[in-house]
Amino acid sequence: MSRKTAVTPTRAQNYPEWYQQVIRAADMAENSSVRGCMIIKPWGYGIWERLQQQLDRRFKETGHQNCYFPLFIPMSLIATEAAHVEGFAKEMAVVTHHRLVKDGDRLRPDAELEEPLVVRPTSEMIIGQAMADWIQSYRDLPMLLNQWANVVRWEMRPRLFLRTSEFLWQEGHTAHATAEEAMEETRRMLEIYRQVVEDVMAVPVIPGEKSESERFPGADRTLTIEAMMQDGRALQAGTSHFLGQNFAKAVNMRYQDREGGLQYCWTTSWGVSTRLIGAMIMAHGDDNGLRLPPMLAPHQVVIVPIIRSPDQRGTVLEAANRLAARIREQSWKDAGIRCHVDEREIPAPDKRWEWIKKGVPVVCELGPLDIEKGVATFTMRNGLDEGRVSVPLDEFAGSLPERLQATHDGLYNDVLAYRQAKTATDLKTFEEFREYFGKDNASSDSNRGFARAKWSGNPESEEKLKELGVTIRCLPFDQSETEGRCILTGEPATTDAIFARAY
Amino acid sequence: MSRKTAVTPTRAQNYPEWYQQVIRAADMAENSSVRGCMIIKPWGYGIWERLQQQLDRRFKETGHQNCYFPLFIPMSLIATEAAHVEGFAKEMAVVTHHRLVKDGDRLRPDAELEEPLVVRPTSEMIIGQAMADWIQSYRDLPMLLNQWANVVRWEMRPRLFLRTSEFLWQEGHTAHATAEEAMEETRRMLEIYRQVVEDVMAVPVIPGEKSESERFPGADRTLTIEAMMQDGRALQAGTSHFLGQNFAKAVNMRYQDREGGLQYCWTTSWGVSTRLIGAMIMAHGDDNGLRLPPMLAPHQVVIVPIIRSPDQRGTVLEAANRLAARIREQSWKDAGIRCHVDEREIPAPDKRWEWIKKGVPVVCELGPLDIEKGVATFTMRNGLDEGRVSVPLDEFAGSLPERLQATHDGLYNDVLAYRQAKTATDLKTFEEFREYFGKDNASSDSNRGFARAKWSGNPESEEKLKELGVTIRCLPFDQSETEGRCILTGEPATTDAIFARAY
Repeated sequence: MSRKTAVTPTRAQNYPEWYQQVIRAADMAENSSVRGCMIIKPWGYGIWERLQQQLDRRFKETGHQNCYFPLFIPMSLIATEAAHVEGFAKEMAVVTHHRLVKDGDRLRPDAELEEPLVVRPTSEMIIGQAMADWIQSYRDLPMLLNQWANVVRWEMRPRLFLRTSEFLWQEGHTAHATAEEAMEETRRMLEIYRQVVEDVMAVPVIPGEKSESERFPGADRTLTIEAMMQDGRALQAGTSHFLGQNFAKAVNMRYQDREGGLQYCWTTSWGVSTRLIGAMIMAHGDDNGLRLPPMLAPHQVVIVPIIRSPDQRGTVLEAANRLAARIREQSWKDAGIRCHVDEREIPAPDKRWEWIKKGVPVVCELGPLDIEKGVATFTMRNGLDEGRVSVPLDEFAGSLPERLQATHDGLYNDVLAYRQAKTATDLKTFEEFREYFGKDNASSDSNRGFARAKWSGNPESEEKLKELGVTIRCLPFDQSETEGRCILTGEPATTDAIFARAY
Repeated sequence: MSRKTAVTPTRAQNYPEWYQQVIRAADMAENSSVRGCMIIKPWGYGIWERLQQQLDRRFKETGHQNCYFPLFIPMSLIATEAAHVEGFAKEMAVVTHHRLVKDGDRLRPDAELEEPLVVRPTSEMIIGQAMADWIQSYRDLPMLLNQWANVVRWEMRPRLFLRTSEFLWQEGHTAHATAEEAMEETRRMLEIYRQVVEDVMAVPVIPGEKSESERFPGADRTLTIEAMMQDGRALQAGTSHFLGQNFAKAVNMRYQDREGGLQYCWTTSWGVSTRLIGAMIMAHGDDNGLRLPPMLAPHQVVIVPIIRSPDQRGTVLEAANRLAARIREQSWKDAGIRCHVDEREIPAPDKRWEWIKKGVPVVCELGPLDIEKGVATFTMRNGLDEGRVSVPLDEFAGSLPERLQATHDGLYNDVLAYRQAKTATDLKTFEEFREYFGKDNASSDSNRGFARAKWSGNPESEEKLKELGVTIRCLPFDQSETEGRCILTGEPATTDAIFARAY
C-alpha cells in the first residue's frame, strides 16, 4: 500500500518531475515568459539571501573586497582568450541595438551598435582588463576582488535553479605575484565553498581536482566540490580555478617586482551560483516537499495558531506571540532563532502542510487545549514519521537549539550515508564498470551513483566514458595512495578518481 | 591667495569636473571600456552595500519580501502599457541573437531570436505579469515585493553614478485592494527614502509631489524627495509612484473581492539607485575630496601608524591594533565603530591624505611620540581647517560616538543652511523669476538654486520653463496654504512649488 504524499510524483516514480513539483509545492521559483529565465519567488530568494550572507562574510574575513563590473562585454574583448571564447561563445546573449522604434502598431530594434555587446557569461575578461590597469607593482598584490551579479548563458534545456539562461552568482577574481600564492588562493576558496556547503547547507561533498577535459575554459587547474543527489547523480557544487598566466597574458596584466622587472600576474577565479539551491533541493527534499537545512531556513520555527471560534482568536494569538518572543530569545549558531507566527485567516491544517512542504524545520500548532495543558504540539520536518510531538511549553523554546542542530546533523548524515551506499569501490575491469553504470545515460535504472576507481590520467581514455554518459567528477584530494590498474585502460595507475553521471 | 587643495579643479572653478575628480581621488568608480557602463570600485561599492543594508532592513520591517525577476523582457510585453513604452522605448538595450560564431578571425552574432528581448529599464511589466498570475483573491493582498537588480537605460551623455547606461537599484512593486491602501503605500515608501537620505546619508530633502509632466511614464501620481547639490541644482533622490490601475489593466491583474466580484488591483512602484551615491558626493564633497556621512563610511576611523625606523614597527603596530580594538568596542547607532589599521608599507603622510580624500570621518596618526605621551593625534574630516587635534589616548575611543554624531549633524546642517540660503522665496513676477535663473541653462552663473513660488497647476504654463532649462521639482507636502499669484502666468494660485535646474 502506498502512503499519500504531499508531492506527486514521488522521487522513486519520477525524480526529474518530483524536483519540479517540490519547487512548486514550496513556492520557491517558476518559469517566466522569457524562455530559460526564472522568477525566484520570496521563499526561494530568502534562502539565497542567507546563503549569500554566509559566503559574503567568509569572503570578507579572508580579505576580499566586493565591487561591480559592467553587464556588457565588447565582442572583441571576449575573443581575446582563445580557450575561453571556445568554451563560452556558443551560448551568449548578444545586444546589437540600443533603441526601439514604432513601426506601425509594433516595435522594432533601431540604432545598431558599432560593436555588438555580449551579456556577461562570466567576467574574467572585463575584470582582468580593469585589474591590468590597476596593478602597477608588487605592492598592489594580491588583489582580491569579488562581485555578486547576474550572468547569462543561453540554455536550450533549462531547469529551474539547475540550468537557467540567467542565474545569480558570485565570481571571485584575484591576482597574485607568484604561482604558489595563486594556487594557495584557489585552494582557500574551495575550502570556503566546502565549509558553506557542508556546514551551512548540510550537504557533504568530495573536494578534488578536475581532469583536463573538465576544466574551466582557459584554466590551468580547476578544483571542485562534488555532491551526490538522491538519484545517484553528481552535482558540481562550486569550482575554484587556477588560471595560471593565461588571462594575465590575454589582458597584459603585469607588475613590477621588487627588483624592478616586469612580471605577468598569476590569477584565479571562483564562483558559486543559485544552482546551489537546486543541489539543496535534490539532496534534502523528500516526498512531502522541501526539507531546509536550518541555517538557510527563512523561518526556522513557524507557529500555527489553532482557532476554532472567533472568541478564541485574541487569547490564542496572544499566547502564540508570547511563545514566539521566547523562541526568538534563543540562539543557535550565534544568531537568534527565526520564528514566524502565521496569522492568516485560512484553515490551520492547510497552513501546517504549507510549511511542511516549504521545509520549515519545526512547525508548532498552538490551540486553546495546548494553552490550557501548557504544552507545545509540534512537528519536526526531519521526523515526519513520528508525527506530532508534545512537550511542556516551558521546555519547548529551550529545546530548539538542540533540535535545529539535530535537524542539520540528520540531513547531513542522511546524504553521507546515501552517498556511501551508492559508491562502488570494488570495480576491477571496464566490463564491470560498464555493467555498473548500465548501457547508456537514457536507460531507466541507470543512475547508479558514484564509482571510485583508479585512473591512468590519460586524457584519451576519457573518450570511453562518453558513450556511457559518465564523466570523471574529480580526482579527490583524499587519495588512497595505493597502486592498481586504470579502470578504463587496465594500465598501472595510482590516482583515485570519482566517476559518475552528472547534472 | 588660493590654498592648495587635494582636488583640482575646485568646486568654484569647475563643478562638473570637480565631481569627476573627487570620484577619482576617492577611488570610488571609473568608466569601463563599454560606453556608459561604470566599474564600481571597492570603496564605492562598500558605501553602496551600507546604503543597501539600511534600505533593505526598512523594507523588511514594513512587510516587503525580496525576490528576483528576469533581466530580459519580451519586446511585445513592454509595448503593452502605452505611456510606459513612450517613456522608455528610446533608450533600451536590445538582445537580438543568442550565439557568437567565428567568421574568419573574428566573431559575429548568430542564432537570431524569434522575438527581440529588451534588457530591463525597469520591471513594472514583467513583475506585473507575474503578480497577475499570483493574485487570486483579496486574501492575497496586499502583495509587497522588492528586487535588488541592475537595469539598463542607454545614455548618450553618461556621468559616473549620476547617469550611467547600467546602474544598480532596488525596485519595489506592490498590489493593493483599494486606491487608498496603494496611496498609503506610496507615501510610506517615500517616507522611508526620506529617512534614509536624511538620517543615514545626512542630506536634507524636500518631499513632495511631481507635476503631471514630470511623472513616471504610466503613473497617476509620482512622489519625490528633492535635494540641493552644491551648485544649487536639484537632484531627485528617490521616487514613489501611485500607478492607479494602469498597469493592472495592462496585465489583467484582478482579484476576487469579499463579495465575489472581480476587481482590478491598485499598484505602486518605488526605487532608488546608485545615483544616490552621486548625490552624496555632490552634497558633501569639498575641495579636498569626499566627506562621508559616518553611517555609510566603510571605515569610520582609520589609524595610520607612524613608523620612522624598522625597529619601531612592532611597538607601533601593536599599539595601533590595541587602540583599534578599543575603538571597535565603542558603538554608535547600534553598531560597533568600524576602525581600520592601515599597515601598508607606504609613507604615512600619503596614507593620511588618501583617507582624507576618501572621506573617512576620523583619521588618527599614531607614532612613538604619541604612544610615549599617551595621546591620540587625529584629524576630523569635517574639521580639516582645525588641522590635527590631540587628546589623551584614554579619552579618544570614548569620544568617538559623539564625534561621529557631530560629523553627521555637521554635514546635514551645512547642506540645509546652503539650501536655505540658495532658495528664493520672494519672487513675484515671471520677469523676476527669469532674472533669478538667468537667461538659459548654459550661462555660466546660472546655477542659482531653488525658487519657491506659487503655481496655478496649469500644465501648459510649464512650457515657459523649458527655455530656461528649469523644471518644477515638486509641489512640497509642506504647503504654506496662502493665496497668491502664479509665478508663471500671474493667475491666482494657492499651491507652492519648488522650481530649479536639475540633474
